[in-house]
Amino acid sequence: MRTGVCYFPEHWPRERWETDVEQMAEAGLEYVRMAEFSWAVLEPERGEFDVEWLDEAIELIGDHGMQAVLCTPTATPPKWLVDERPEIRQEEPDGTVREHGSRRHYCFNSAAYREETERIVTKLTERYADNPHVAGWQTDNEFGCHRTVRCYCDDCAAAFREWLAEKYGSIEALNEAWGNTFWSQRYTSFEEVDPPGPTPAEHHPSRLLDYARFSSDSVVDYNRLQVDLLNEANPDWFVTHNFMGRFPTLDAYAVSEDLDLVSWDSYPTGFVQDRLEGEPTSDQLRAGDPDQLGIDHDLYRAALDRPFWVMEQQPGDVNWPPHCPQPGEGAMRLWAHHATAHGADAVLYFRWRRCLEGQEQYHAGLRKQDGSPDRGYHDASQAGAELAAIEDADHVDAPVALLFDYDNLWALDEQPHAPDFDYWSLLDAFYGALRARGVQVDVVHPKTDLAGYDAVVAPALHLVTDGLANRLTDYVETGGELLFGPRTGVKDEYNKLRPAPQPGPLADLVGASVDQHESVPAHLETRVRRADGDETYGFRTWAEWLEADAATPLLEYDTGGVEAGRTAVVENDVREGTVVYCGVWPDADLADALVRPLLERADVPYCDRLPEGLRVGERGDYTWVTNFSSDRFGLDPDADVEWLLGDAAVGAYDVAIADGRIVDGLSVERLE
Amino acid sequence: MRTGVCYFPEHWPRERWETDVEQMAEAGLEYVRMAEFSWAVLEPERGEFDVEWLDEAIELIGDHGMQAVLCTPTATPPKWLVDERPEIRQEEPDGTVREHGSRRHYCFNSAAYREETERIVTKLTERYADNPHVAGWQTDNEFGCHRTVRCYCDDCAAAFREWLAEKYGSIEALNEAWGNTFWSQRYTSFEEVDPPGPTPAEHHPSRLLDYARFSSDSVVDYNRLQVDLLNEANPDWFVTHNFMGRFPTLDAYAVSEDLDLVSWDSYPTGFVQDRLEGEPTSDQLRAGDPDQLGIDHDLYRAALDRPFWVMEQQPGDVNWPPHCPQPGEGAMRLWAHHATAHGADAVLYFRWRRCLEGQEQYHAGLRKQDGSPDRGYHDASQAGAELAAIEDADHVDAPVALLFDYDNLWALDEQPHAPDFDYWSLLDAFYGALRARGVQVDVVHPKTDLAGYDAVVAPALHLVTDGLANRLTDYVETGGELLFGPRTGVKDEYNKLRPAPQPGPLADLVGASVDQHESVPAHLETRVRRADGDETYGFRTWAEWLEADAATPLLEYDTGGVEAGRTAVVENDVREGTVVYCGVWPDADLADALVRPLLERADVPYCDRLPEGLRVGERGDYTWVTNFSSDRFGLDPDADVEWLLGDAAVGAYDVAIADGRIVDGLSVERLE
Amino acid sequence: MRTGVCYFPEHWPRERWETDVEQMAEAGLEYVRMAEFSWAVLEPERGEFDVEWLDEAIELIGDHGMQAVLCTPTATPPKWLVDERPEIRQEEPDGTVREHGSRRHYCFNSAAYREETERIVTKLTERYADNPHVAGWQTDNEFGCHRTVRCYCDDCAAAFREWLAEKYGSIEALNEAWGNTFWSQRYTSFEEVDPPGPTPAEHHPSRLLDYARFSSDSVVDYNRLQVDLLNEANPDWFVTHNFMGRFPTLDAYAVSEDLDLVSWDSYPTGFVQDRLEGEPTSDQLRAGDPDQLGIDHDLYRAALDRPFWVMEQQPGDVNWPPHCPQPGEGAMRLWAHHATAHGADAVLYFRWRRCLEGQEQYHAGLRKQDGSPDRGYHDASQAGAELAAIEDADHVDAPVALLFDYDNLWALDEQPHAPDFDYWSLLDAFYGALRARGVQVDVVHPKTDLAGYDAVVAPALHLVTDGLANRLTDYVETGGELLFGPRTGVKDEYNKLRPAPQPGPLADLVGASVDQHESVPAHLETRVRRADGDETYGFRTWAEWLEADAATPLLEYDTGGVEAGRTAVVENDVREGTVVYCGVWPDADLADALVRPLLERADVPYCDRLPEGLRVGERGDYTWVTNFSSDRFGLDPDADVEWLLGDAAVGAYDVAIADGRIVDGLSVERLE
Repeated sequence: MRTGVCYFPEHWPRERWETDVEQMAEAGLEYVRMAEFSWAVLEPERGEFDVEWLDEAIELIGDHGMQAVLCTPTATPPKWLVDERPEIRQEEPDGTVREHGSRRHYCFNSAAYREETERIVTKLTERYADNPHVAGWQTDNEFGCHRTVRCYCDDCAAAFREWLAEKYGSIEALNEAWGNTFWSQRYTSFEEVDPPGPTPAEHHPSRLLDYARFSSDSVVDYNRLQVDLLNEANPDWFVTHNFMGRFPTLDAYAVSEDLDLVSWDSYPTGFVQDRLEGEPTSDQLRAGDPDQLGIDHDLYRAALDRPFWVMEQQPGDVNWPPHCPQPGEGAMRLWAHHATAHGADAVLYFRWRRCLEGQEQYHAGLRKQDGSPDRGYHDASQAGAELAAIEDADHVDAPVALLFDYDNLWALDEQPHAPDFDYWSLLDAFYGALRARGVQVDVVHPKTDLAGYDAVVAPALHLVTDGLANRLTDYVETGGELLFGPRTGVKDEYNKLRPAPQPGPLADLVGASVDQHESVPAHLETRVRRADGDETYGFRTWAEWLEADAATPLLEYDTGGVEAGRTAVVENDVREGTVVYCGVWPDADLADALVRPLLERADVPYCDRLPEGLRVGERGDYTWVTNFSSDRFGLDPDADVEWLLGDAAVGAYDVAIADGRIVDGLSVERLE
Repeated sequence: MRTGVCYFPEHWPRERWETDVEQMAEAGLEYVRMAEFSWAVLEPERGEFDVEWLDEAIELIGDHGMQAVLCTPTATPPKWLVDERPEIRQEEPDGTVREHGSRRHYCFNSAAYREETERIVTKLTERYADNPHVAGWQTDNEFGCHRTVRCYCDDCAAAFREWLAEKYGSIEALNEAWGNTFWSQRYTSFEEVDPPGPTPAEHHPSRLLDYARFSSDSVVDYNRLQVDLLNEANPDWFVTHNFMGRFPTLDAYAVSEDLDLVSWDSYPTGFVQDRLEGEPTSDQLRAGDPDQLGIDHDLYRAALDRPFWVMEQQPGDVNWPPHCPQPGEGAMRLWAHHATAHGADAVLYFRWRRCLEGQEQYHAGLRKQDGSPDRGYHDASQAGAELAAIEDADHVDAPVALLFDYDNLWALDEQPHAPDFDYWSLLDAFYGALRARGVQVDVVHPKTDLAGYDAVVAPALHLVTDGLANRLTDYVETGGELLFGPRTGVKDEYNKLRPAPQPGPLADLVGASVDQHESVPAHLETRVRRADGDETYGFRTWAEWLEADAATPLLEYDTGGVEAGRTAVVENDVREGTVVYCGVWPDADLADALVRPLLERADVPYCDRLPEGLRVGERGDYTWVTNFSSDRFGLDPDADVEWLLGDAAVGAYDVAIADGRIVDGLSVERLE
Repeated sequence: MRTGVCYFPEHWPRERWETDVEQMAEAGLEYVRMAEFSWAVLEPERGEFDVEWLDEAIELIGDHGMQAVLCTPTATPPKWLVDERPEIRQEEPDGTVREHGSRRHYCFNSAAYREETERIVTKLTERYADNPHVAGWQTDNEFGCHRTVRCYCDDCAAAFREWLAEKYGSIEALNEAWGNTFWSQRYTSFEEVDPPGPTPAEHHPSRLLDYARFSSDSVVDYNRLQVDLLNEANPDWFVTHNFMGRFPTLDAYAVSEDLDLVSWDSYPTGFVQDRLEGEPTSDQLRAGDPDQLGIDHDLYRAALDRPFWVMEQQPGDVNWPPHCPQPGEGAMRLWAHHATAHGADAVLYFRWRRCLEGQEQYHAGLRKQDGSPDRGYHDASQAGAELAAIEDADHVDAPVALLFDYDNLWALDEQPHAPDFDYWSLLDAFYGALRARGVQVDVVHPKTDLAGYDAVVAPALHLVTDGLANRLTDYVETGGELLFGPRTGVKDEYNKLRPAPQPGPLADLVGASVDQHESVPAHLETRVRRADGDETYGFRTWAEWLEADAATPLLEYDTGGVEAGRTAVVENDVREGTVVYCGVWPDADLADALVRPLLERADVPYCDRLPEGLRVGERGDYTWVTNFSSDRFGLDPDADVEWLLGDAAVGAYDVAIADGRIVDGLSVERLE
């Protein structure tokens, strides 16, 4: 359980470095990440390298008992390089070139840029292969930030054609797989296939999905080029990449396969403003949303089924969201604990000191611009000491898997079929219900072996192959508990509609099929009622009319509209397990009403429904209690508890750690 | 009174076709439209044709007693053609090219594309000239869909210059006609005149209007090229084109002049979401809006003063509006009856079966993706049987003309002078008042001979020539009843302000002139009051201060603002007729208060004001009652009625047909 | 105190001119502005000039005792010129060319266009150098209208590099000044520096600020080219330019330095809709906002510390705002008086007669399209007579300076750090508080000598050099009263953060520093409370947590959030003066609570807080009372008053003029 910091020595006078590094050590920081944007300093002109400053910085860090994490500086090719080889720049669909002047202005498929990448990475790996203070490397920085995964340049066009030829073998196979008879879209050769440019009407969904896959694969390839160079130079180095929360165009699972360690960058009060549905509450503006962070922690942990790092942790106010409120008192400490509860082994704060120049002057550091300690420095020091006091906790062992993958994300993003249908938000609805019951969740790719999970939730398993259908059927038949959300089993892997009614190859497993679907605006009535009772629940955005075959109707529509009385949710017992199919986007009460019996059937321990903002997480033999709200809560566990940190009364933005697992039967009340 | 369907045999295995066609015949369908997007199947590579499949499909259709309607496949030139002749593609004003990958990616002025069009159309007409099962042809598909009427490529620039030279003769004449002294916009030659590209400030309105006219004329020319080939090949074929509801850039009157039959594509629950003011009600989301559909029916019927077809009728849920709710129970049947009441002789549902591939997978058909019957199949079968049982009704004989044309639309779109001034919506205000009184309306071009109409309504006759003014004066003087809306008589045919005060050449007829006009946001007071009484009415958006000369003030402004007490509406008796000029955009009550006395004076039979959603329409000796709401209504006609379908109690989304004309004196009440 | 009009004789038949000019003279107009868009008429083809019409028009004007103000016609280069030299056109950042067809389509840095400018201006100056009826010239027209200050063409790129080389001497100096180590943005030569084009993420703020400065300087240079030619031709001519209200990209102070007279174009009912925060009230839609107009009057008066002109005064309804309501009764007269109260010596109405052609047909004139008098003609005639009756009033002598400059505007626009942070609106908050106390204000550049001012208000002095800090310190130490707003003292002149805590070099003067800042959305609590009392006040958008050193805390945060109890406003006595630093964006009550004691300390006479819409202004020995509301107000001055116009009861949109200065102690009540 370690902490660290991101440092830019090149921004400060050499004479300051010693002070900086001493203060880092004082705060208990153990890792220092450097150099991700330093190409122009490392190589001010072609072939003229200036690396001594980095040598010295690493030396200082090592001298103070810390370890350096280095970055390849490829996220920001310098202007001299861009001017020499302008073909490395990305292009928008309409041909607009993404110019130098910010960052991430290069194309992943540029042969020229891959050459330059190899050159600079090799230069650095050679320099530091034997350096004892370098623990590992981060490749590049935040692949995909600023919508840069998808490029539409000539290099990409050529690479796309190769990718397609490789995948489909013949153009006839591609025409068949995509379904190109529609609107005369058949091709006579791969040469005819372009990246999707500006068109009068919407694009073919199968072409778009493959372009999304190809674009993501291009990043995977590019990253692998760097990983291979790093592995070759020093096999003891760990190699990681810092993903960003909820990034829509890059398959983090696929990139992770080439890494030793997955890390990500966590900015709680920004993320609630720019990638969460609805207007953030006051608490969310002050501390972020624990489930929005949690689902990312759980995704990046599950990607390699290994502890992850938070490579950049928000240190105070930041520069890029719409509004930039000050985090609540203690929030920077809270986030480190919350990450640890979800399986992080290290949390590095970004950045050491507020920068005097460039785009991020409004981004706080642990130290102020004058070098004095900022709010985050105190929080980080405290978190560091507290986490160091916890013996290394085991890897999180989650009993429930939430199925998520990027193919489904891309397919649903292309055809949302309602302005407010957002796949992430639908995931949140189910994930939030699980976390409100104190359950740890692995956010895994559907291809994952599910045997070890007591229960599986699949919020919208849109694209389903026969193989996946078979594996899920096996899972349930051998005792698995499975909950499907709406829009499941609609399409094949090429984003084509299956001829069989939804849920296609899952119909036997579900014991029901979808007669009709509809998307509805918020001002239409959206209620469902228990088939065997009076309770009603709300839903939103999406409704499917189910026809039960072997399955039992659980809920039916309770509206004055055309769907009144039709079935919305069914349950089906299949040999040793049970499957529930929910044809609507559930509100929080309905999600809980589906999740609680699922946990019950799966014999997963759970607690009373937790208030918003308060979350508990079991890791190894510890239980973290994290309070993201300004309220104070009292915990009432089923048995006696030894508190390693704090106690059963948890204040605003505060943390408690219990020695032991306390979720089962736990209840919580709001204190005055 | 016939029904039909749109069919894509090329999407399904040959062995399925027989089943499909049998099921069509069972449903009573009589027409099958095909081939509008099949170029890449018909000619997979240049010069290699594969037409046998279409031969077979036609043969099957004929064998089952149905007739084929074929389409020229020019809406979707295949990729090989686009790659060979890239100059056929359209361009945006900023030069962005509209690429292959959806549809309608060709320029109407491309000489290359006209050549290719002639080649493919000739190939097909030669093939089917003697085929007894082909009843007629549809040219292309939905000209102008996806904003594709206006293109800005070099071919268009050249064609625009020719069009201008033809129209004006000399550049001096153009400078004079447009008024190019303003802002130094005079040209020295036609070569200097470009399509309107990106400029710092707004464009010259006269240049814009001529570009709109030229663009529409380009489609007319292109369509005529196809029509001529089809007429030449077989003069017995009917030739039609399928227009789309409320399309803003194409003059449907002008295109229609070259056609034998006008048809259009009707998608009620989509149109209320993407081209109707305000948020749609629950009823509108379930069944569409009867007046929004009605005004299009009446426009396309009046275009040739002949029965029209609905070439594509929404069959269930569709893919392209913001939300995609399921239509109400019976809505697909309701729409067919409603179209028939407005003068349709055939209604073809789009499409036969939900498609497994491409952009429209979320668009229902009469059959589901697995081939089983969908909701629309039942509705279509019922409607088909009911309509077949009605003996052919006479052509609709409307007593009232609503003046509409595209020049006025374009001129007002260019200079709306208020964010919420929309010419279509203003038309709706007057049209809705007429339809709420059960009156049939012809939506005609102002150049139409008006002698046969008992009353004429002109909601915003913005551009007025002296000739038109004279004809309208003649109309009133010989006993016509005329109602003008605001913004009438402002400009000449070149979109230049007339020197005389508004309504310019209509001032004598109106007996008043406009002292001032203003546009007002919703939060200002907008009431008018009877000059001779206490009743007040609301208006919106636009207000003119009238100065009555020969006319009598009817209504005056009743606000606290600067216009208080000034005249808003006047009435003028002119020999045998009367003209009313309304200087405001009326709300529904005011529109009714203007329309009812108009009908009274014109001796047009009308009914009590109908509730929203319920509409009646007389056609020949029948009266259709169509209920677009979820309420149930009881009808109380003045005399005894024989009901051919249903009865005097009309339920949700239901229909009744009376034998005889029952509008005069009819009253309606909502039933519990 | 004079009036005039803008006239376009080229739009009307020669035989009409005499009538027009007679009617102008009858209305008491004394200046006639002409020819700003007439290039295509003056030079229909290259080298073929037609200037006689202008000779005649000037002659007529002179014959009627009026004077002509001529304009260089460079705002609208004709199409033949654009086609000959297409490189004169501006470019958008993405390379889109701004085409001919509206106006302002030329680049200020185009060598070709400067050559053409010299040619046409010389032609005209030669023609009129000795004409006795030409009083002076306006250069071009509304520089910067339609966002045309910033261009991104190759000429601009080259000029930008030269400008940078001139400013920084070496590329190392530029790298250091901007801080280009950040994100590898170091350059190796000036050749590498481009205009800021499309980039994946935001641009470097220092590069943006210099591009903003360079772009503005380009206009200054271009204007100077014209000024020099005009001065050379006839040193007796005045040379002016007509600025536009609240234009965001052009430094009006810098342009003014080359002028003899500053003028601007005032469109009150348009400006409240397109450049004022929030939805306009009914009164604002009818008469504009007196403080929005006032701050512009005061800026353009202060630019040369000389009486200014309103070169274009709104004459009635206009064509370009969202809605175009009719101005209130008398509003066009009110505006002329209001401008005079703020220091105008002449007000020219735009335009003489409503134009029949082109983009501005919906823009009223003093005469209607048929030549008859429009509403504005009556108002203008009355205002002209009333103003002529006032003996020339002295130049306005404002006791308070409001510090404003374009560098701060640009820096804050680039990094607003909150969607609702708008520098103009923050200025309005402080300016409005001063005007509501009847105080005249000079809106001056911070470099202005402040010695003569009793008090100085600096709403957001963002960029502060040591020199400026020293001058402000001197000002206070020698008895000045100074009020700072938030975001003061943050950055250096290169838009780089200062290492010292905010307010940087002002910290000693303020006696406090900023511990933290935050921006907050409207739904968070935003109250402050007196440190020594119970009164609370509202704030918005921005909050700084102050740490008082020598200063005394005045107000502290009164919220439930993390900032509760921290200091928001401090006061510091510094030798003979006092400085107050306000760390929040104040609401109107808080602004008044800061401004009133400031005036008290500075011994500036002020009145009771005036109601919205009513404003008083002292100029020389007169006091104007102007009522921008539809209410009626009664004035109660401290002493007896002789009313030169009107009296102490001022009706809707009416004016009164007192002989003498009556602000001190004045109170006002709303009359029924």
